[in-house]
Amino acid sequence: MIDLNADLGEGFGRWRLTDDEGLLSVVSSANVACGFHAGDPTTMRRVCAEAAERGVAIGAQVAYRDLAGFGRRAMDVPEEELADEVAYQIGALRVFAEAAGARVAYVKPHGALYNRTVRDAAQARAVVAGVLSAGGGLPVLGLPGSLLLASAGEAGLPVVTEAFADRGYTPEGTLVPRREPGAVLTDPDAVVAQALDIALRGRVRTDTGSVAAGARSLCVHGDTPGAVALARRVREALQGAGVRIGAFA
Amino acid sequence: MIDLNADLGEGFGRWRLTDDEGLLSVVSSANVACGFHAGDPTTMRRVCAEAAERGVAIGAQVAYRDLAGFGRRAMDVPEEELADEVAYQIGALRVFAEAAGARVAYVKPHGALYNRTVRDAAQARAVVAGVLSAGGGLPVLGLPGSLLLASAGEAGLPVVTEAFADRGYTPEGTLVPRREPGAVLTDPDAVVAQALDIALRGRVRTDTGSVAAGARSLCVHGDTPGAVALARRVREALQGAGVRIGAFA
Amino acid sequence: MIDLNADLGEGFGRWRLTDDEGLLSVVSSANVACGFHAGDPTTMRRVCAEAAERGVAIGAQVAYRDLAGFGRRAMDVPEEELADEVAYQIGALRVFAEAAGARVAYVKPHGALYNRTVRDAAQARAVVAGVLSAGGGLPVLGLPGSLLLASAGEAGLPVVTEAFADRGYTPEGTLVPRREPGAVLTDPDAVVAQALDIALRGRVRTDTGSVAAGARSLCVHGDTPGAVALARRVREALQGAGVRIGAFA
Amino acid sequence: MIDLNADLGEGFGRWRLTDDEGLLSVVSSANVACGFHAGDPTTMRRVCAEAAERGVAIGAQVAYRDLAGFGRRAMDVPEEELADEVAYQIGALRVFAEAAGARVAYVKPHGALYNRTVRDAAQARAVVAGVLSAGGGLPVLGLPGSLLLASAGEAGLPVVTEAFADRGYTPEGTLVPRREPGAVLTDPDAVVAQALDIALRGRVRTDTGSVAAGARSLCVHGDTPGAVALARRVREALQGAGVRIGAFA
Repeated sequence: MIDLNADLGEGFGRWRLTDDEGLLSVVSSANVACGFHAGDPTTMRRVCAEAAERGVAIGAQVAYRDLAGFGRRAMDVPEEELADEVAYQIGALRVFAEAAGARVAYVKPHGALYNRTVRDAAQARAVVAGVLSAGGGLPVLGLPGSLLLASAGEAGLPVVTEAFADRGYTPEGTLVPRREPGAVLTDPDAVVAQALDIALRGRVRTDTGSVAAGARSLCVHGDTPGAVALARRVREALQGAGVRIGAFA
Repeated sequence: MIDLNADLGEGFGRWRLTDDEGLLSVVSSANVACGFHAGDPTTMRRVCAEAAERGVAIGAQVAYRDLAGFGRRAMDVPEEELADEVAYQIGALRVFAEAAGARVAYVKPHGALYNRTVRDAAQARAVVAGVLSAGGGLPVLGLPGSLLLASAGEAGLPVVTEAFADRGYTPEGTLVPRREPGAVLTDPDAVVAQALDIALRGRVRTDTGSVAAGARSLCVHGDTPGAVALARRVREALQGAGVRIGAFA
Repeated sequence: MIDLNADLGEGFGRWRLTDDEGLLSVVSSANVACGFHAGDPTTMRRVCAEAAERGVAIGAQVAYRDLAGFGRRAMDVPEEELADEVAYQIGALRVFAEAAGARVAYVKPHGALYNRTVRDAAQARAVVAGVLSAGGGLPVLGLPGSLLLASAGEAGLPVVTEAFADRGYTPEGTLVPRREPGAVLTDPDAVVAQALDIALRGRVRTDTGSVAAGARSLCVHGDTPGAVALARRVREALQGAGVRIGAFA
Repeated sequence: MIDLNADLGEGFGRWRLTDDEGLLSVVSSANVACGFHAGDPTTMRRVCAEAAERGVAIGAQVAYRDLAGFGRRAMDVPEEELADEVAYQIGALRVFAEAAGARVAYVKPHGALYNRTVRDAAQARAVVAGVLSAGGGLPVLGLPGSLLLASAGEAGLPVVTEAFADRGYTPEGTLVPRREPGAVLTDPDAVVAQALDIALRGRVRTDTGSVAAGARSLCVHGDTPGAVALARRVREALQGAGVRIGAFA
């Protein structure tokens, strides 16, 4: 059994990005943008309502306050401020989840905050502090080996690891940086094969062999043309191989 | 018995406006800015923590999304969007109230949204719809005779009326518009006298006599030099006249 | 001879809306978003560079400060502030136009500001005051009969009228409001026919006959699928009928 | 002869921070906030008008786009975007400077951008590229030895060094970091003495002796109570010692 998660609700006002309807028919967990890097209140409400109706788990996709940069620019936010910004976003999303009869079931940082909290102890602690303030002992979804998950675990929060069907891995088990060749798998067959490797064997292939990449959740992307169709292929291949798809939360 | 309410937490990042510490020593209800016209997450958390410690009721001071205009510029926000924006703000504040062991106890619109919902039925409905989405059947604090309170009452929400110690009233019982002479009382003795008139007699004096202005809550201001001292004088005068000060919520 | 204008550069950061490349191959005047309703600095620079290379005139598409509402929500901005916001936007765009060896050649308000300045004298004056502050005596592009153009004319600024190939007109010569049937022409042949009517006869058909709708510039839209192809058909039909396409500025 | 520069116009909408009137009576160069970390269009216009009237030089105080953090949080803005954001801010300010009959005479980065461009070559190049795009060969004001000034010099822009009357210096000639003891001089006499040391001897005292700190411009601060009075004392002490105060630009 594995979870499929994707980023949703990443428009803002007039602008749309993610195919929310399409993704909600594929994933078991929806990382919903909370207004800081994307996500206006009306979109948040709609995505929560649709997710609740389909039984998709709702996660708070918390981010730096950076609409102009889509949360992709690392920021030196002081620890206390960052914790408060994380709590604020979770609270805002919770209104819409609860109005839909559901709840915010987990937290996943977005973009530069996700990447930074892999190695930045202060920001990792800040995200965890924000999750703790928000109450409810929410699970944190992140990269295996990250300081974020270490910090969440120390604080007694459930931690959930994720792997990527469409990202290249180094022999050390980390992601190939986006600016290097092989960072993103573009061949649909390769993406499907990697998803199966992760779900069935807990390993992914690298240039020099293979490396452990077991994960409770598999991240799929939905912000490019054809992405939803590819995510659906991944889902069907997993199900065809006997893997059940289900939320961790 | 009467409630004293004031706007708090109206800074943003580096900027401060309200004397939050001073006001929390005077009022029984704190209208806390939620980030749309003012109010950053760290300030929201601090004000909630301090209010909870002092037993001051916490209200969501919801506003148009307008930092540049401090929420004082009326905006034609479509009804559905406005409802969602109101719910978002309540949810964000709730995280900090609950982290402090308290709760969001009521809602009061700010600035241009307060004024507009006196007469604009669609926006009044939108604010009420946002409050309903947020759950908990929160009381709405507003102007007697406003469409906002009428709409809240129809929806089954508790309504709480307020009066102003430092604003002039017309013979019809409405506030003298801000651009007309007599809109704001600047003489401290006149402010104190009007507070007593409201609390003890449910009436205020006008140019031509007096008019009914009973209210469950009295609004005091804290964003000008000397305002907190004046609010404290009002509080002491009320208590000296045997009026108990206590939150309605 | 007629001008073709369209709104360009209406993305923001990660979000795209208009097909800027496509539109620049069709129009003679580009209304470039300046950052208040849409338009980030990098997009502004790129659109200006491409427009300059193709000889397309660059106009400042000034708007309310409202990214969340895409400038489509009327706002009660005080006259002085609005004038300053207009000047700010013109100045910001001018940097990129001049860096490309071109210049800001005219000003056109966007969305709710366009609609509001048809009848709101104070806001019309404010836009004109902003254009005057920005210097250079820039022409103002707007609706025939609007207070905006009247105010610009009184201030000695060149005024340029526009008509719409894809909007329905009332027998009084105003646009059919967007929420009424017939507001937008969706049949491509009807759009092309109306463009020809405007350019060749200075009239458009209405339910009850026809009405004067002469204009120096014809507005085409580029924010929907197929819009650029339709704009190109309009351009070719006009040229086929002997109408020259050329910027007014 | 030395220049005195200070940050001005650092309010936003309802919020005020700097005593602009007071500072303009003291300094010879005004670093005017351009809307990204602070500074609304109306404030920008007023500060430019007042500066022009008093003959104070107007500089663009460019910053990260970060109102919530007042531009004090370093951000990983890609080089091209940062260059465009710098150009945008210069253009916006230029409108108000020119409307006042003056001009933007120089550029100084603010807060975290100032600190980051001391050592970050890509961001230093980006600021310089933005200044170059804006045209006019504007001088860049910054820290002696910074990559920003090196990069500006290589690009052929005039560079202007500054020193700080109220900051502690290390024996290596760099500023004592803000979180260490001795970072900020709070004794007014020590500030005045350091200003005289800089202007007359091009040196400042350190724990272990003295170090070269010559500069064409002396930065004074105006965002704390008493700061303007202190800046005025610095000015008078300099003049009393025979130093002329005058803008470099």
